[in-house]
Amino acid sequence: MGKSTQGLILALAGGVGGAKLALGLAKILPPERLVIVVNTGDDEQFHGLHVSPDLDTMTYTLSGLYNPETGWGIDGDSFGTLDMLRRLGVETWFNLGDRDFAMHIRRTDLLRKGATLSEVTAQLTANLGIRHSIVPMSDQPVRTVLDTDAGALAMQEYFVRQRAEPAVRAIRYAGAEDARPSPGFAAALQDAHAIVICPSNPFLSVAPILAIPGVRDAMGSRHVRKIAVSPIVGGAAVRGPAGKIMAELGAEVSAVGVAREYRGICDVLALDTRDADLAAAVAAEGMEPAVMGTIMHTDNDKIALARQVLQLAARAETTAQ
Amino acid sequence: MGKSTQGLILALAGGVGGAKLALGLAKILPPERLVIVVNTGDDEQFHGLHVSPDLDTMTYTLSGLYNPETGWGIDGDSFGTLDMLRRLGVETWFNLGDRDFAMHIRRTDLLRKGATLSEVTAQLTANLGIRHSIVPMSDQPVRTVLDTDAGALAMQEYFVRQRAEPAVRAIRYAGAEDARPSPGFAAALQDAHAIVICPSNPFLSVAPILAIPGVRDAMGSRHVRKIAVSPIVGGAAVRGPAGKIMAELGAEVSAVGVAREYRGICDVLALDTRDADLAAAVAAEGMEPAVMGTIMHTDNDKIALARQVLQLAARAETTAQ
Repeated sequence: MGKSTQGLILALAGGVGGAKLALGLAKILPPERLVIVVNTGDDEQFHGLHVSPDLDTMTYTLSGLYNPETGWGIDGDSFGTLDMLRRLGVETWFNLGDRDFAMHIRRTDLLRKGATLSEVTAQLTANLGIRHSIVPMSDQPVRTVLDTDAGALAMQEYFVRQRAEPAVRAIRYAGAEDARPSPGFAAALQDAHAIVICPSNPFLSVAPILAIPGVRDAMGSRHVRKIAVSPIVGGAAVRGPAGKIMAELGAEVSAVGVAREYRGICDVLALDTRDADLAAAVAAEGMEPAVMGTIMHTDNDKIALARQVLQLAARAETTAQ
Repeated sequence: MGKSTQGLILALAGGVGGAKLALGLAKILPPERLVIVVNTGDDEQFHGLHVSPDLDTMTYTLSGLYNPETGWGIDGDSFGTLDMLRRLGVETWFNLGDRDFAMHIRRTDLLRKGATLSEVTAQLTANLGIRHSIVPMSDQPVRTVLDTDAGALAMQEYFVRQRAEPAVRAIRYAGAEDARPSPGFAAALQDAHAIVICPSNPFLSVAPILAIPGVRDAMGSRHVRKIAVSPIVGGAAVRGPAGKIMAELGAEVSAVGVAREYRGICDVLALDTRDADLAAAVAAEGMEPAVMGTIMHTDNDKIALARQVLQLAARAETTAQ
């Protein structure tokens, strides 16, 4: 690998799948070589507290606190606060553990005292021993809203309360037009030697990030390789409602459909070995296909995928020179 | 008992001792005959949440949730939220259980949405099945501040963080001059057929209530009997730092010292059987002594004391007519 591969990797991520690859990257790269930008379009006020589900999933994953059974929340957490809120007649359809509540209480307290979400996130992650940079996509609020056959639903209402059951007709990123990339994101967009879109939901996790004014242009202006990892394997989402939503929005539920979403944004699409027969179709969409094992069960799986993605990045930089 | 004894009882209370007698009163009186006014001078912001220790102690006691070991908090509560806040580098000297946190989260959320503390308290207590009226002394903030040899300390700083160790030189009730009795308190001051000062700390629990402009005058203008129950038994506080503070402020640590504090405010002082020899000295201070068992361990103790206090009230009303 050339010297340039020692440069910065910018990873864009949303929920559980994105956090898995980010963990792999963090296990390989030193802190100064990785910036993980996380979707905040799912953020929501619950009980007057600012909840950032994707930031927390990433934080719990990188700190080792995460619950491997659920993918969200803190392993072994209790639910006394939520139980009591239920007794107080409060709607509690969004599951929040007691330790989880501490994050939201602390985040809300710091935000009310004037800190930005970036500053709060830096403090929370540092307090939990995370040395890599986890940054929100923006310090301004962006809310992913799904227009469905059950009406307009905020992300968590759709995903948790309605169990992703209503049919999606369109998705909006409310507030995106007034948002700016967070300082850490903006700097990484300038400095990155490669950009990785993690295997997150293209519409619910990645599109909110790309909807922030200037992000697509900044990515387009950088002559570095941009690698997306398909969250669709074998014609279905590895996890979550990505496949269902793609179908409802008229997209092909396959790595080819993902290639069409990221065409013009990324150069390379990493697709799973069991989709190897789609490589030519991905190439026909104008993206370089890279076939590899993308399913991540163990930490070794995450490290292995991260290593292959970084090899693509290294090759890409060599090409670019 | 005459018909007039069917009237309203107004009880003023602070922490654990006050809640015990209030529970006894609530077990005898129907909801429409009792208003419990609770000190809020101990209220504090912790982690951006509005904590009302005395309101919660009263609420937990009357709902049966209270922890009989500690007197405060909810029986069997867990401490996951506080543990996690500690991991996040936050000072956690004030013990808050997970179910406790739910109360503070809900209270804060409703206050931020514009509800008064009275409205919030009515809702929280109703949600926990309490039919009797628990009302804050005021909807405006009053903060008990102790001038000590360790500097000026808010009540919880003094009591919990410093374990009531610094010597107290003076006590202030910051904000009291701009506070008004809560609507429920103001109405009960007008309507009460008897007023009971529960065995709470005279300086830290009862004085903040009496410091609200108009309260002393309203009590003085009512020709009903006003009965205080001494929190000092056998020359020491039954619980907490009342004795220590009385001594530091130059008061006699006895039922006689308590009589001097409540002289002109109450007519009757209920003092414990083991202080029977002080009855004459109490009478010499201008208060009618009423000797009875005031130590409350069991619910039966609480009911027995409440019954005797109500008998005093009934006798008093008869006298007044």
